[in-house]
Amino acid sequence: MKDTSTICAISTAPGVGGIAVIRLSGPKAFDIANAVCDVDTHSLKANSSVFARVLKDGTLIDETMLSKFAKPKSFTGEDVIEIACHGSAYIQSTLIDMLLDAGCELAGPGEFTMRAYLNGKMDLSQAEAVADLIASESASAHKMAMHQMRGGFSKDLQELRDKLIHFASLIELELDFSEEDVEFADRDDLKDHVDTVINYVRKLLESFSLGNVLKNGIPVAIVGRPNAGKSTLLNALLNDDRAIVSDIAGTTRDTIEERFVMGGYNFRLIDTAGIRQSEDAIEKIGIERTFKSIKEASIVLYLYDVCATSQEEVDKDLEEISEDKKLVVIANKTDLSSKAKLNTNHIPLSAKNKDGLDELTQALKAACDDIVGSQNNTIVSNMRHVEALKLALKDLKQVRAGLENNITGDFLAMDIRSSLNHLGSITGTVTTDDLLSNIFSRFCIGK
Amino acid sequence: MKDTSTICAISTAPGVGGIAVIRLSGPKAFDIANAVCDVDTHSLKANSSVFARVLKDGTLIDETMLSKFAKPKSFTGEDVIEIACHGSAYIQSTLIDMLLDAGCELAGPGEFTMRAYLNGKMDLSQAEAVADLIASESASAHKMAMHQMRGGFSKDLQELRDKLIHFASLIELELDFSEEDVEFADRDDLKDHVDTVINYVRKLLESFSLGNVLKNGIPVAIVGRPNAGKSTLLNALLNDDRAIVSDIAGTTRDTIEERFVMGGYNFRLIDTAGIRQSEDAIEKIGIERTFKSIKEASIVLYLYDVCATSQEEVDKDLEEISEDKKLVVIANKTDLSSKAKLNTNHIPLSAKNKDGLDELTQALKAACDDIVGSQNNTIVSNMRHVEALKLALKDLKQVRAGLENNITGDFLAMDIRSSLNHLGSITGTVTTDDLLSNIFSRFCIGK
Repeated sequence: MKDTSTICAISTAPGVGGIAVIRLSGPKAFDIANAVCDVDTHSLKANSSVFARVLKDGTLIDETMLSKFAKPKSFTGEDVIEIACHGSAYIQSTLIDMLLDAGCELAGPGEFTMRAYLNGKMDLSQAEAVADLIASESASAHKMAMHQMRGGFSKDLQELRDKLIHFASLIELELDFSEEDVEFADRDDLKDHVDTVINYVRKLLESFSLGNVLKNGIPVAIVGRPNAGKSTLLNALLNDDRAIVSDIAGTTRDTIEERFVMGGYNFRLIDTAGIRQSEDAIEKIGIERTFKSIKEASIVLYLYDVCATSQEEVDKDLEEISEDKKLVVIANKTDLSSKAKLNTNHIPLSAKNKDGLDELTQALKAACDDIVGSQNNTIVSNMRHVEALKLALKDLKQVRAGLENNITGDFLAMDIRSSLNHLGSITGTVTTDDLLSNIFSRFCIGK
Repeated sequence: MKDTSTICAISTAPGVGGIAVIRLSGPKAFDIANAVCDVDTHSLKANSSVFARVLKDGTLIDETMLSKFAKPKSFTGEDVIEIACHGSAYIQSTLIDMLLDAGCELAGPGEFTMRAYLNGKMDLSQAEAVADLIASESASAHKMAMHQMRGGFSKDLQELRDKLIHFASLIELELDFSEEDVEFADRDDLKDHVDTVINYVRKLLESFSLGNVLKNGIPVAIVGRPNAGKSTLLNALLNDDRAIVSDIAGTTRDTIEERFVMGGYNFRLIDTAGIRQSEDAIEKIGIERTFKSIKEASIVLYLYDVCATSQEEVDKDLEEISEDKKLVVIANKTDLSSKAKLNTNHIPLSAKNKDGLDELTQALKAACDDIVGSQNNTIVSNMRHVEALKLALKDLKQVRAGLENNITGDFLAMDIRSSLNHLGSITGTVTTDDLLSNIFSRFCIGK
């Protein structure tokens, strides 16, 4: 399965910068580096850096800092050279061309990390976490990816799986002695263990909706009656003029979605059309979408105009919002009225003057903390893992039912093996080439 | 003049990448690195790299590779730490925040290079070349910047300046003995030397138009009669549909400018409106601009339609193009006609089918090689250097005139000193804080 080629790529962000780092990995990394630089990387100590001139046909291309890492003590587990060159477009592309001419192959997306996995430096779910780590924009997404990269649920899953393998082996042994009617695997112990695994898998599956939300942004719907100031609030939160704001009720006909990071969370902020009876066909569609947005949101920001809306109207609107949503109620336009907010739990705000924004963002953060709760350490955020867990759960339920119905050992063993395959595919104990290329294709080049 | 603060910045290109490099420089670089990482950088050997965990309040932020460089053997001449972290937006910003909390200051544009200059690692013109090197997109711009970074004309200038200083000192010594009417400085030798310096400065000044063109792109005007296929040619060269192409003569009313890199040169390709008598007011302006473009171009690509244009018409057009331009004549639309081109020196082309593009790009490259000639090693491309050279030249001419008119030593010494100041400002021997901050402000942050 191991590749004997030597790969190279620009590992830093694309574009022009002070410096850029070009990484080489593979059996010929040192030879190829020698071919383009004026240093002998073979005699260089591992984990050390040295000043190196890159020369092409005797012409100086750049003065660089070259670092050497020797297998197996490198990121990929192979011989690795990193060249920190000046970050000009010309130097980066020329150096890559020179490396290709000297025998390197251009690395595919995630190929360095794939090699780290193939060389046993990390399991598959850890390798996948590297891509999540690089993409992470908020503290919560970062924490989740870092936890997974450090092992995450891999270790727990491995232990549960090992015990299942033990049972499967015993049952398969029974099959060899089928005429003697022996039972090596204690059926009650097996039942208990299958229950434990089922519970663990269920817990992981339940964590997915949260994991997905933390990774891709917590959906927050901004709702309220027309002209309550929803778009002004969106703009105030974003410090930007993204939404069209006017005094005409019904200005926002479609939903507008914006992302922002605050208090360690990544939010998807959804501005909606006002909730009201409308004759305008396009506005009607917008209002339908508003209710769809509320349904999909984790948090609903309900906004009302302190001057124009009565307690009864607010209560009526709030009734329409499902109880399983985190709700933040905002009394807007405090700049226009000396009238108090209707309820002490409502947050007073002037979206226009950006007064009260601090209290609002605190409330948003508290709602998120509440959603995340204490579950933070066993969160699944990867769709592939979810699919594998679902398939494993189906198999395990069949094992459980089979044990209840005293089915024969061969069927039992088949279902256990199937669940083992699905659980093993998460950490890469069981894998295929297709799966690997699919996983690593979503990486950036150079990692 | 030296700064005692420790600075940090992201040195790689902005954005998300596999890895990002954060650089620290200053007296507290090692202490500050210790405050954010789990390694003791003091006990780490210089020029070595080590695996380091970045921890914030006990929470793992990232697993990084940390490299140490000790003063004076570093880029800046100060203690330097480089941390190669995962290139996520969150990790990069968190690590910078941690470094600022630990006592770093955020580096200004070019501040690392400015410190290298202040610590005597390079002269000012070399430091300026670092910015040019990073911005270089073509081999010719790169070569010019690299030559300057490696010393360029600094050494020659320094030698000429040293000799001038020697003369100035002798003349100033004469002033001390003014009553004795002695001449320590041989006036004929001084005349010869001033002539040498004047010639050298003139040569440098003459190289500027070329240097500027190599740095910012060689202007190439594409001209010809309406419907000769100018826009099609532009698109063929760019592999792109930048210009609006139609069969209606006069489609291109304004000039269109595009940049592209080919054969090691950076080109500014200017598509022009067709040359013809026009009644359309807007088109008339376009045609006027065409003649302006021709005037400013270094190379003129004249294109004619082999089917529609006669030898007389071509000759008439070519007469209007000034002789000091490099001229490339193209016989276009060879796909439509079996008719031979009018002249063996004309390049046959089908811009539509992209036939003959190779021969055209060869001709373009040859024209550039011709322009560059053998002058390549003493090219000035920096506007600041040009201004200093012009001022120095003015002073030197006064010295020369003064020597002819036997003016007194005190006036002579004053003019020599003034020219020395201007010449010294190029390499930074003579400098001011304002000048420095002006120069380094055009750098990117992190370099």
